[in-house]
Amino acid sequence: MPTKSKNENLRVVLVSTRNPLNIGAVARAMSNFGFDQLCVVNPYEKAFREAKSAVGAADLLAHAKEFPTVAEAVAGCSLVVGTTAVRHRELHHTVRRLEPAARLIKKHSLSNNVALLFGSEKYGLSNDDMSHCNWLLRIPTIDRNISMNLGQAVAVCLYELIREGRTITKEKTTLKLASAEEMERITTLLLDVLHGSGFLKRRQVSDAYARIRRVVRRLNWPERDATVWTGMLRQILWKLRKGGPPEG
Amino acid sequence: MPTKSKNENLRVVLVSTRNPLNIGAVARAMSNFGFDQLCVVNPYEKAFREAKSAVGAADLLAHAKEFPTVAEAVAGCSLVVGTTAVRHRELHHTVRRLEPAARLIKKHSLSNNVALLFGSEKYGLSNDDMSHCNWLLRIPTIDRNISMNLGQAVAVCLYELIREGRTITKEKTTLKLASAEEMERITTLLLDVLHGSGFLKRRQVSDAYARIRRVVRRLNWPERDATVWTGMLRQILWKLRKGGPPEG
Repeated sequence: MPTKSKNENLRVVLVSTRNPLNIGAVARAMSNFGFDQLCVVNPYEKAFREAKSAVGAADLLAHAKEFPTVAEAVAGCSLVVGTTAVRHRELHHTVRRLEPAARLIKKHSLSNNVALLFGSEKYGLSNDDMSHCNWLLRIPTIDRNISMNLGQAVAVCLYELIREGRTITKEKTTLKLASAEEMERITTLLLDVLHGSGFLKRRQVSDAYARIRRVVRRLNWPERDATVWTGMLRQILWKLRKGGPPEG
Repeated sequence: MPTKSKNENLRVVLVSTRNPLNIGAVARAMSNFGFDQLCVVNPYEKAFREAKSAVGAADLLAHAKEFPTVAEAVAGCSLVVGTTAVRHRELHHTVRRLEPAARLIKKHSLSNNVALLFGSEKYGLSNDDMSHCNWLLRIPTIDRNISMNLGQAVAVCLYELIREGRTITKEKTTLKLASAEEMERITTLLLDVLHGSGFLKRRQVSDAYARIRRVVRRLNWPERDATVWTGMLRQILWKLRKGGPPEG
């Protein structure tokens, strides 16, 4: 999870956004990933007003800042990164894939302000908008369909900024596996059940026991379930030994 | 960039989605990242029909498949992963963060089918939906606002699946796992055996079936052993139904 201060240094700048649903979606993704500096440049008048009532990120939208120009929106930032779907727009700028781009942005935002620019739904950033950028980033979409929905593009970029890098600490939620003794207890009960049901009599092979033992161990038995499996097998064994007509 | 075949092994399953805009957005993100297997389970009638006219991913939507149940939508998959915003929903399942979860999914999808389930906008996946899952994943949103927009959540998950990580080498040692149908067959037989033995009678709990389904799915059943387990259970069931004194 990122520190608060790091995220405060990054502002999301939406340039000429048309659709209020998209502004709302951007605000929601920012809220999900812990970013709260939203700037809009020259939005379609109505779009920004309507977005303010969008669910899920009301606070963030209420504090969003509106600017008439890109220059004013990025004032105070020492790194300005534009987003583009296009790979080779007569390359005036370096274009970086999102993964390495995010590493540079994260490093920079530790102690400096960074602006991340997204263009309009239809045209993206203009050459003039891009002229304010130090470099561009692109999300690695496939060639057949490079154009992403604005809200989804922002969500993916912000996720990449907060995702854990290589030093991921193991999560505690990993299943603890049953011990060898527990597995042996299950194996023994299963063998008794298989005897009781006639299974082992019908398939007489020399290494039946070892086979069953291997079959049991190829499953990864979670420790938490060892007791319930043991309970099931005990009950089945009891019923087989008791004989008589089935109850269930 | 992933190979075509790997992405073909992953299907996105939307359960009880209400909003046609969201189905359209999901299809667009899938198209952006090169996934084309979309299944919808029990969508609001109108939603699915309207989504079919959504821009950007018409082909994909035209080939989307509709199913009445989760079981049918995940048939043929040997790994079923549910998505959740909640961290500790009385944890019946292991919950993994998206980053390590995606590594497991990528590895698995090299040679097996995987289903990734997303619940309805309002309620997410139900406990019953989740009982079909091997484990759950969560996107690392911040605590203050854990609930993501459906289209954005799908975009972020698929991005994580295609982003460049450390180069994943094919592991020859990976066991091919049993499919969802095989696991369901084992579950059904086990339930019959548990009925026959009186196990389910003695422990009457409201969600006994879902519990057993989860317990079965927490084990990793290798495909090669599915037949022998099925055979054991059939024999036990036969013996329980026949009654009479034990032979073994």
